[in-house]
Amino acid sequence: MSHPVSPLAPKTTPAMPPIEGVTIATEEAGIKYRGRTDLMIMAFAEGTQVAGTFTKSRCPSAPVDFCRANLKHGTARILVVNSGNANAFTGRKGREATEVTAFAAAKAIGCSPTEVFLASTGVIGEPLAADRFSGLLDGMVESAQTDRWLEAGEAIMTTDTYPKYATATVALGDHIVTLNGIAKGAGMIAPDMATMLSFVATDAPIDAPVLQVLIAESVGGSFNSVTVDSDTSTSDTLLLFATGAAAENGAPRITEADDERLGPFRQALDAMLKDLARQIVRDGEGARKEIEVRVKGAQSADSARKVALSIANSPLVKTAVAGEDANWGRVVMAVGKAGEPADRDRLAVYFGDIRVAFEGERDPSYSEAETSDYMKNDTIVITADLNIGNGSATIWTCDLTKEYVAINGDYRS
Amino acid sequence: MSHPVSPLAPKTTPAMPPIEGVTIATEEAGIKYRGRTDLMIMAFAEGTQVAGTFTKSRCPSAPVDFCRANLKHGTARILVVNSGNANAFTGRKGREATEVTAFAAAKAIGCSPTEVFLASTGVIGEPLAADRFSGLLDGMVESAQTDRWLEAGEAIMTTDTYPKYATATVALGDHIVTLNGIAKGAGMIAPDMATMLSFVATDAPIDAPVLQVLIAESVGGSFNSVTVDSDTSTSDTLLLFATGAAAENGAPRITEADDERLGPFRQALDAMLKDLARQIVRDGEGARKEIEVRVKGAQSADSARKVALSIANSPLVKTAVAGEDANWGRVVMAVGKAGEPADRDRLAVYFGDIRVAFEGERDPSYSEAETSDYMKNDTIVITADLNIGNGSATIWTCDLTKEYVAINGDYRS
Repeated sequence: MSHPVSPLAPKTTPAMPPIEGVTIATEEAGIKYRGRTDLMIMAFAEGTQVAGTFTKSRCPSAPVDFCRANLKHGTARILVVNSGNANAFTGRKGREATEVTAFAAAKAIGCSPTEVFLASTGVIGEPLAADRFSGLLDGMVESAQTDRWLEAGEAIMTTDTYPKYATATVALGDHIVTLNGIAKGAGMIAPDMATMLSFVATDAPIDAPVLQVLIAESVGGSFNSVTVDSDTSTSDTLLLFATGAAAENGAPRITEADDERLGPFRQALDAMLKDLARQIVRDGEGARKEIEVRVKGAQSADSARKVALSIANSPLVKTAVAGEDANWGRVVMAVGKAGEPADRDRLAVYFGDIRVAFEGERDPSYSEAETSDYMKNDTIVITADLNIGNGSATIWTCDLTKEYVAINGDYRS
Repeated sequence: MSHPVSPLAPKTTPAMPPIEGVTIATEEAGIKYRGRTDLMIMAFAEGTQVAGTFTKSRCPSAPVDFCRANLKHGTARILVVNSGNANAFTGRKGREATEVTAFAAAKAIGCSPTEVFLASTGVIGEPLAADRFSGLLDGMVESAQTDRWLEAGEAIMTTDTYPKYATATVALGDHIVTLNGIAKGAGMIAPDMATMLSFVATDAPIDAPVLQVLIAESVGGSFNSVTVDSDTSTSDTLLLFATGAAAENGAPRITEADDERLGPFRQALDAMLKDLARQIVRDGEGARKEIEVRVKGAQSADSARKVALSIANSPLVKTAVAGEDANWGRVVMAVGKAGEPADRDRLAVYFGDIRVAFEGERDPSYSEAETSDYMKNDTIVITADLNIGNGSATIWTCDLTKEYVAINGDYRS
């Protein structure tokens, strides 16, 4: 946890405005870490609508099971998140821990346990002693404030080297609504998920089924398009809460996903989730460079995505970028191993705008000096143009450095 | 190339006996490396039968294309292998380099170019200047000797820290035949291939179609069951040559794969390919530990294999082993992300013989001290018992260390 802040961290922290209907509190519960907050609650106004998406792991954590079951009710009053312990692969004890927490949270705010949402992140397999912090929830609900978003982002960190925030204000009909989002994650990050943990709240009056459609549309191009290490977590959770408080100011209630007034909100949500997802990649364990992998000219979008993931998850591509080596031969290797339709002799590879390979061999105008210079950048864009169709996809990842090995060789102990 | 020899290297080098009908020569051609051999030929007696298997990459190297085309003829007179340059993704120039080499080799030994086999290993994308070494082939054929197997293993190395040998003598009918094998490979190693390069020769009189059946049967449990970094090479080549010289001493000619006299030969070939494949893993770039991943109780053998690969390719599992951390939670994660049928609450995980997790939670008798002690071993056996069926599979891999990143962050430059 004492690793230096990623050089790719945002230069400034956004001012996170209050979201009407949301109050926040954090605590030092001492679950694993000392001298820092590790427990966070968000309390929501009555009637707050909720949607979410979770890890596709076959071995999900107990809180993921718990949230999945509650999501069908569509309303939320309180979110409880702890860091330091994932409450994953903890069996019966894990289910008991979620029940203890949910009961205490429901009692603290005065709601049904079906309106409680939980997330845990940290070590897998250690029992979570929920009774050690459930007694804190009464006081936290009582002291929760609207201006605690920065603290919320900090309390949910594990191996993150910086907290991840995003905010937007956007028109809904003729009225302005606000979205705030936070996220955490640095390792065990791979697509087919909704990142480690991310929570977005808005005052927009949008019904839960509509929120669910919006998440489903947005997650493919954001959280499901990043990878740090190809390892999908047991705990990935994205939850979107809509308090509806803006209705009091005249914002229209949205009950259908095809409501045209949703346009700007949809765009803002897309941009926010992509922003948070890229912040996670830029805080990838040991990362010193962000890599944007673009595949175009593939047989289909799905095929392009598979090729892009093959490149983005290749240890040899990632170590080459870490070494500032424009080793495009490894990109060719990764295209080849993807198993998707490709024709070696039509393939072109670019680093940034520099075409390094064309029609199955090194570009005639290739300049080692120019390309090496480009590799010194913080963000490296690798483009593979398969030249056999119109499918395209983009995946974001980070380089693979010795620091990744160091962080993960002694994370647990 | 100056990396220290893997601590997992074999303690002794086997005495490699001559194979009647095979002579070998090596040379310092200066293709990339200085002060070491980088060119190797094996000359074969007339009528030598050949079989092989190659990378499944969609972007194979020019020599792979060349060998695939020649394999259908079934006979071989000469093998030419260079290290330092893979002749992969070299377009028209790459095809020309294989033609130049094949023509010179055929002329040197006096055969058709269809009886020449080629392999190249090293950097991808650099044109291979075959005319710089094709002039050496005449002299090499002339000076080739039967007792140069150790030199052959050395000449084909790239980032390998030790050469890889195996030898066996075995009964064929009432007669003894001999098999010798060499291999190279340390990075860009993943299943669905036949390793970087491996060459096996025998004096057994076995027809090419039978050899092909034997390879197909054996490669699944050997070369296709190892992974260093999940990155499949463009150049993977396994070739098996049978000179048939033992027929002169009375060994029976084998023309059918179901000939019962093949039993001991088949077993010896299986054991040899598995031995060479494991030598590659034990020389995996930066490796300090070998990891044997056993999955049992899966729905099918295919499903077990996918789960085993998910564990063996997980950077988080591999870094944990590097850190001697019995982090079985990451094994659970890797089972979960595989997407194969699994039931969290029936899963058991073992490190060696120590059951660390059982029925979805930490084993009640788990001892951190005992498990940590086990993790100090050179070879770590991880077993995941899914407890839902009878499918099983074993995959060999190595740990992921800072040295892997160092080796691959400056390999090309």
